[in-house]
Amino acid sequence: MPAAPVVYLAGPEVFLPDAVEVGRRKVEVCARHGLAGWYPLDADVGGAEGPAGAWALFDAMLAMLDRCDAVIANLTPFRGPSADVGTVWELGYAAGRGLPVFGYTAAMDHYGARVTPDGLMVEDFGLADNLMLEGAVRRAGGAVVRVDGGGDPLVRMRHLAGFEVCVAEAATRLLGLG
Amino acid sequence: MPAAPVVYLAGPEVFLPDAVEVGRRKVEVCARHGLAGWYPLDADVGGAEGPAGAWALFDAMLAMLDRCDAVIANLTPFRGPSADVGTVWELGYAAGRGLPVFGYTAAMDHYGARVTPDGLMVEDFGLADNLMLEGAVRRAGGAVVRVDGGGDPLVRMRHLAGFEVCVAEAATRLLGLG
Repeated sequence: MPAAPVVYLAGPEVFLPDAVEVGRRKVEVCARHGLAGWYPLDADVGGAEGPAGAWALFDAMLAMLDRCDAVIANLTPFRGPSADVGTVWELGYAAGRGLPVFGYTAAMDHYGARVTPDGLMVEDFGLADNLMLEGAVRRAGGAVVRVDGGGDPLVRMRHLAGFEVCVAEAATRLLGLG
Repeated sequence: MPAAPVVYLAGPEVFLPDAVEVGRRKVEVCARHGLAGWYPLDADVGGAEGPAGAWALFDAMLAMLDRCDAVIANLTPFRGPSADVGTVWELGYAAGRGLPVFGYTAAMDHYGARVTPDGLMVEDFGLADNLMLEGAVRRAGGAVVRVDGGGDPLVRMRHLAGFEVCVAEAATRLLGLG
């Protein structure tokens, strides 16, 4: 049996107090669909600490991104009206490598509805977030999956309904199903 | 004389009321260093409007990113403690393509100092923003340039001192100077 295609699981849930448990559940969902989920917290930093530890972590996550077959990104708003920039950087990196990318959010509203007027133009395309994020997912053949994860930022960040839709889409794409 | 290397000018200043003028000044700085600056507002969307216009804009910006030689990103905080996600996506995309990337911010403080406690772990590496952003710039051989652009979000977003440092670095790298 060939090795399962690898999906990198990008998202700010790595910053939750129960980040390890959330990751375990995401990897389980992937396994049920025949995919190997790689969670950033599993990155091997070789015990490095301090500033050297930061760069070792970056290198380890980049090595995972360079070896995966697709990226599924949790684009739920994080510390503001938009997604987590680390997650977004990884989404862009994967797109630049030509990989299929998938995205979901637990916020149903569109980006413009979340912005407090600040004297700057608000991108008003009715999209879940900035055009580049949704455009990248659309270019890969899908759309950003929006589900209602409620109003609590910490609760909705670990909401997995949208993630499950993305995993099913990724399995169809990577395993040639459907 | 060979054509000047092309630098894509990523940043949220495209949302300023005087976005066109800011872009004109950035392109001028590039020209002084022998580089061709491409500003996202110059993207050719062929007159498309509405939803089709959004995708045409995405495609046009992607075409620019696919043809440039480097990206300089304005990572000044935007609508929260982090950089603009559109800019960050472009930085990631360029890194995924293997291009040299440069970044600057008009905020001197580090990311952790800007985050309001929210029950989530704060990445505390003393970096200007999320590790992936600074790691990408560092991997290209540089560092995120921090200059003090003051406290007004709109004023500091058009601050060009950090940008000028990045352009000089990009010229050294792309033209083999220095």
